[in-house]
Amino acid sequence: MQPIGIIHSPFRKKEYTQIQPCRSHSKGQVEVFPEFVDGLQDLDGFSHIILLYYFHCSKGYSLRVKPFLDHKLHGLFSTRYPCRPNPIGLSVVRLVSITANILEIQGVDILDGTPLLDVKPYIPEFDRVDGVRAGWFEIRNKPEQRC
Amino acid sequence: MQPIGIIHSPFRKKEYTQIQPCRSHSKGQVEVFPEFVDGLQDLDGFSHIILLYYFHCSKGYSLRVKPFLDHKLHGLFSTRYPCRPNPIGLSVVRLVSITANILEIQGVDILDGTPLLDVKPYIPEFDRVDGVRAGWFEIRNKPEQRC
Repeated sequence: MQPIGIIHSPFRKKEYTQIQPCRSHSKGQVEVFPEFVDGLQDLDGFSHIILLYYFHCSKGYSLRVKPFLDHKLHGLFSTRYPCRPNPIGLSVVRLVSITANILEIQGVDILDGTPLLDVKPYIPEFDRVDGVRAGWFEIRNKPEQRC
Repeated sequence: MQPIGIIHSPFRKKEYTQIQPCRSHSKGQVEVFPEFVDGLQDLDGFSHIILLYYFHCSKGYSLRVKPFLDHKLHGLFSTRYPCRPNPIGLSVVRLVSITANILEIQGVDILDGTPLLDVKPYIPEFDRVDGVRAGWFEIRNKPEQRC
């Protein structure tokens, strides 16, 4: 695994980044390293992209964690907690524009300086699921409590 | 990065796996290695999960590719093509049941024997986006041409 770019965001500290209760409206930039810029062709046709990145500030992991949006312990794989055996983060963000190797994005919940591993197009046919049951998250975060 | 399990599916050959034109109904199993089983607690409350896995049969990459669902060249990052600088695959699948360290799943488009890197809960508030524009994919795969 090698970084293919760096994610820039307004979030400089873990404490302020990870407690986003719902989709952030914050803007950020994805800087794709110049040697990969040819791979961005046609990406501007997509309104949303999936970013995979390395949770570079996470150290070690526990299999039972208290996620940021609950006060109870849950199995690590039923949470999005950043400390994981393979600390890969996943965020769906809006792609605002592309200029050369810089992607302007919106809806960022990622720490500034995070190494980028991959960019994939968000394709509703693959990635958008209706009628989902969302376990403890749904119980803990009732609609009226969300932003 | 280390595998935390193995994905079992009916797809034994790349040629038959990668041309799934839309969400497969095929069933499969995710075998999570016993040392990680405690991390599965509460996952059964979620109807869908995100699997991150290693495209172990992919060798090298090109920044311009013809994806399986089009006959034109596109930038690699505007496709889900498996040969990537960091060959991480991402699939949203239905979680049917969990028995010990085995997750029964449906909607599999993954090669049999694929190393599992991570399991995350699918949380509509983070992962489900409406009103998406899907570039070349949308143009190429008009609704009437889909399954």
